[in-house]
Amino acid sequence: MRLGGVEAGGTKMVFGIGDETGTVLEMKSVATTSPEETIPPILDYFLSQQVEAIGVGSFGPIQVDPDRPNYGAILNTPKTPWKGFEWPRAFAQVGCPVVIETDVNAAVLGEAMYGAAAGLSDCVYVTIGTGIGGGVLAGGNLVHGLLHPEIGHMLVRRNPQDSFAGGCPYHRDCLEGLASGPAVELRWGSKGSALEADHPAWDMEADYLAQMVVNLTLVLSTKRVILGGGVMHQAQLYDKVRDRVREYLAGYIELPSSANTNSSVNASLNGNALPKQHSPEKPSDAFIVPPGLGDLSGLVGALALAARSRIKPPH
Amino acid sequence: MRLGGVEAGGTKMVFGIGDETGTVLEMKSVATTSPEETIPPILDYFLSQQVEAIGVGSFGPIQVDPDRPNYGAILNTPKTPWKGFEWPRAFAQVGCPVVIETDVNAAVLGEAMYGAAAGLSDCVYVTIGTGIGGGVLAGGNLVHGLLHPEIGHMLVRRNPQDSFAGGCPYHRDCLEGLASGPAVELRWGSKGSALEADHPAWDMEADYLAQMVVNLTLVLSTKRVILGGGVMHQAQLYDKVRDRVREYLAGYIELPSSANTNSSVNASLNGNALPKQHSPEKPSDAFIVPPGLGDLSGLVGALALAARSRIKPPH
Repeated sequence: MRLGGVEAGGTKMVFGIGDETGTVLEMKSVATTSPEETIPPILDYFLSQQVEAIGVGSFGPIQVDPDRPNYGAILNTPKTPWKGFEWPRAFAQVGCPVVIETDVNAAVLGEAMYGAAAGLSDCVYVTIGTGIGGGVLAGGNLVHGLLHPEIGHMLVRRNPQDSFAGGCPYHRDCLEGLASGPAVELRWGSKGSALEADHPAWDMEADYLAQMVVNLTLVLSTKRVILGGGVMHQAQLYDKVRDRVREYLAGYIELPSSANTNSSVNASLNGNALPKQHSPEKPSDAFIVPPGLGDLSGLVGALALAARSRIKPPH
Repeated sequence: MRLGGVEAGGTKMVFGIGDETGTVLEMKSVATTSPEETIPPILDYFLSQQVEAIGVGSFGPIQVDPDRPNYGAILNTPKTPWKGFEWPRAFAQVGCPVVIETDVNAAVLGEAMYGAAAGLSDCVYVTIGTGIGGGVLAGGNLVHGLLHPEIGHMLVRRNPQDSFAGGCPYHRDCLEGLASGPAVELRWGSKGSALEADHPAWDMEADYLAQMVVNLTLVLSTKRVILGGGVMHQAQLYDKVRDRVREYLAGYIELPSSANTNSSVNASLNGNALPKQHSPEKPSDAFIVPPGLGDLSGLVGALALAARSRIKPPH
């Protein structure tokens, strides 16, 4: 299968072709300015590639319900040139199915088909960076609901050591207001990337992320939580979050180990998208993991959307 | 269709027959003691009734994955006589399909087919009583994940007026530890049912329940949240929870109104299971609602499970 994918971010769009094993065959990118400037090179590229389907993981809010007439339209975004832009219409000339998802739902599907949750029916992908956002796979289906999950603005308990008011313009001290990259910078007066691995910032950050993981676990009974995004480049955070999650759960829930979730890893794996290998000593090591696809999770996720649309309709 | 249903609670089991419109034709009950005492009258009843399928909404934890060999088994319960009890085996002699769910997942399905969320693909049912537990419907599918959603032990922020340590043996001051019926009684020294409608207990209770609703909304993007159980007999709580939810969300999410979620109410309604009529002035009035099936939500939910199994397999 020859498939097209677009990872549509707020600063750049990464696009390319690949196949149903998650292998990226070619990758390009273009700056995200306006549809008039950004889209033509992507359209021209796909017109020359004979793809069977195109998957798009897009910044939002976006209409992801295929039963709506405005399926694939970008809704009320602050990026005003893109408000009302419709992905399926933009690629109509290519003459193949165009499947649209949020960027984080594309990423969670990519990770579940080819990455850190390969073979799992239920997992969550959360990116912690400029903002906090998440995608949810439940019973093999991407969760949409009324629009799509947000996760970032969840209410969490303030860490007792934390006197920072919080940076969210809506809620001040919601999760995103306390634990996004900009929140870390505002609180400590320094970019997170400039703080030492043993800086107290990271224990506090882990506390907030652990509360999020606990609440996701209790609501979804999910099998794996993948934490990505710029803040998670601080790799020491993974163990800190795992420790705090165990403390918060206090034995109430038995976290899944690899053994009881990896029913069968039936997704094809390949050279450019190898998941991290886990040889977990504790169940929490297998439960809270980094993305397996690294920087490719967006584009591979878009290819996964396209691949899945050839197997089952986007419902 | 002639269908059987069992609402298996910790103190009694309600069982009966009904049809695919959610109509209950006959209803009986028996005390929950041990499988040896409790099950024979239910089995005898179904053997005499020629049912096409039996739905069971059971106390848990319970194995709800139909691909597991122990599908329908009660797992590690403190009700020791029931540990390892297998529902499908108990009714094998009837010779019809037996579909098993948690009590709250049965209730959410019943409400989505015939009750307060009739016609919606995405909703949550939470019961607030001796404990707090919830069931989740997402994209028309009941969420299972690793086992099934719990919801009750979610982490919430302590209300600034609250000096009660919390009553959860695992987490002390998780949602259930702060907001279940026993928590209300421990905090105020009086059963909730004996507290006046304007007692400060209810503002505090509403704060905790609103935090739960906010987090459910952000994780699931759900279309409706149904709050039931003994504590919600304090009907003034609904408006208090709606007010607090609006305050917490602070305009970040536009709550669904009836207009944009009630795509088509295609479930059959009937005399004994009429949903409450909502003529909401604010979207939150339609978003946070009481059960439409009242005391019948468990049994009607079990019938809904049976009805759905004749239309689609339990996946």
